[in-house]
Amino acid sequence: MVVSAAAAKEEAGLGALDRLLAATAAEMEKVNALILKRADSHVEMVPQLARYLIEAGGKRLRPMLTVAAALLFDAPTGAQTNYAAAVEFMHNATLLHDDVVDESDMRRGRPAARMIWGNQASVLVGDFLLGQAFLMMVETGKLDALGVLASAATVIAEGEVFQLSKAGDLAATPADYDQVIRAKTATLFQAAAEVGAMAGGADETGRAALREYGLQLGLAFQLVDDVLDYRGEAGAMGKNTGDDLREGKMTLPVILTLADANPAEREIIAAALGKPEASETALDQVVAIMNRHNALGRTVDKAHEHVRLARAALEPVKASGMRTILSDIAEFYVSRAY
Amino acid sequence: MVVSAAAAKEEAGLGALDRLLAATAAEMEKVNALILKRADSHVEMVPQLARYLIEAGGKRLRPMLTVAAALLFDAPTGAQTNYAAAVEFMHNATLLHDDVVDESDMRRGRPAARMIWGNQASVLVGDFLLGQAFLMMVETGKLDALGVLASAATVIAEGEVFQLSKAGDLAATPADYDQVIRAKTATLFQAAAEVGAMAGGADETGRAALREYGLQLGLAFQLVDDVLDYRGEAGAMGKNTGDDLREGKMTLPVILTLADANPAEREIIAAALGKPEASETALDQVVAIMNRHNALGRTVDKAHEHVRLARAALEPVKASGMRTILSDIAEFYVSRAY
Repeated sequence: MVVSAAAAKEEAGLGALDRLLAATAAEMEKVNALILKRADSHVEMVPQLARYLIEAGGKRLRPMLTVAAALLFDAPTGAQTNYAAAVEFMHNATLLHDDVVDESDMRRGRPAARMIWGNQASVLVGDFLLGQAFLMMVETGKLDALGVLASAATVIAEGEVFQLSKAGDLAATPADYDQVIRAKTATLFQAAAEVGAMAGGADETGRAALREYGLQLGLAFQLVDDVLDYRGEAGAMGKNTGDDLREGKMTLPVILTLADANPAEREIIAAALGKPEASETALDQVVAIMNRHNALGRTVDKAHEHVRLARAALEPVKASGMRTILSDIAEFYVSRAY
Repeated sequence: MVVSAAAAKEEAGLGALDRLLAATAAEMEKVNALILKRADSHVEMVPQLARYLIEAGGKRLRPMLTVAAALLFDAPTGAQTNYAAAVEFMHNATLLHDDVVDESDMRRGRPAARMIWGNQASVLVGDFLLGQAFLMMVETGKLDALGVLASAATVIAEGEVFQLSKAGDLAATPADYDQVIRAKTATLFQAAAEVGAMAGGADETGRAALREYGLQLGLAFQLVDDVLDYRGEAGAMGKNTGDDLREGKMTLPVILTLADANPAEREIIAAALGKPEASETALDQVVAIMNRHNALGRTVDKAHEHVRLARAALEPVKASGMRTILSDIAEFYVSRAY
């Protein structure tokens, strides 16, 4: 019955996504129009590169979260359109810089922008998008929301540097990993939800609730992402399977496995970790060891914990159809792991 | 007598620098303390890399400009400390990203940060500094000044991309060059002076005057920089002579030379342009051709025009010791070219 329970959860999760898409469609149309408009520039290469990435069609989960959070409250100010576009620009700036940092050749199922326009333009267009994000925030005239995003920008960069400093470190701990994903991933989900609540006119309680909800959702999201990297769903992810291992990223699956592995197993993992040239066979061996120690399963369990915390965080918010959708959507994030 | 007139100008310029340093010393002490404090992070590599660059001791011309502009007016708000530190962080973020983009190995007379910590950390610490810059602006509670800097950030990035798209383009025009240096260099000088005026409580006239002054000063600065790149003053610049040629940067000296060159000369230039491996001999040949067409001299003349415009821009501002210093300091920028 385990399988059908999981299947039922997945169905509930997918249903929630459809409901979220429907509930935010009108607002997201405005956001998408603003995103395209603000990716424009008289310097041709800027919109070419920016639109290539933007139109590759990520799911826009983060701006959708901003919009949904705004609609959760009674007094929407309209600022959510700018906030949501700013959040998506910050995310895309991070992706452009990450692909340079990770030397990735794929993103969203297509060659990464840097493979077409080069590392140089990817760094600079990332900077452009970051500037535009802040400019859109300035235009709303709301300094406090701008502070949330500016603070997020520094925390995200710190998290990425911390991740870099731990790359290939066999002594990395689950606490290190937690610190990395809080900073590099969950911070933007947290900020997206918080500024959404602010645009919705939430009081302090509502703002804190959405802040916590976004944080927990982001943690669950990254945990699942890090499982999928080893589950061979390159197509679905739009990236290459095993990238994390080859880049030496100390994600929870590898940290948990190393903690329980015998010397022979450790040696096999160490030989492939951080080696861009590691073979498919080596990768398969590592995944077999992970499964022997149930490291992927335990990582999914951890994601479930954060989903529970995300749902619990919404309790202080007045019950509504949107609150139910946000509560259910957390399940969707984890359903991706099956 | 030309030489001694130049020498006299240089002396006046250097005198102005000393006077500017003295007049801003107390304020700059606060700025420097803030810069060090805000370069800190619990992620060790962040302050290591940031301080390596920051303490290499650029002249801090941009933040000094912010402070000086604030002191030019009657009602300093105190915001200039944060504004000046934010301007310097934006500048340092740009340097970190530029060194990655240009694959530079030297900066401020030392190995570039990317040669020690890698491209990856340079990109990410640049992002961190940019985030901190905006955070410091947010903390002053002044949205309009923040808008000036956010707008500058996008224009600078656009300018860098435009420069990239023109690299090695033998058909690049003086107008292209003007567009590049306005965006990538003069915009930050302009913003530095403008937010300084705002911190000083300037009215619209004062703000516009400083905006124009900063713009013209920045244009003069970049023109001289682009001359020095061919004048073999690697030590003084802290970079390698001929870098611009080897990187294929279409600066005014090369654009003016190409316009007047005969086919044989064009061929020599084209053979070295954008070739990282171009020899010292090839570089010397190019410089000889440039001198034959007086391209470096004409570029310095152009810088002088902007110095004149910078000085004229200050006329609407009430006369004061600081106004005289700012007027004279413009001369210092060009005196570097002799």
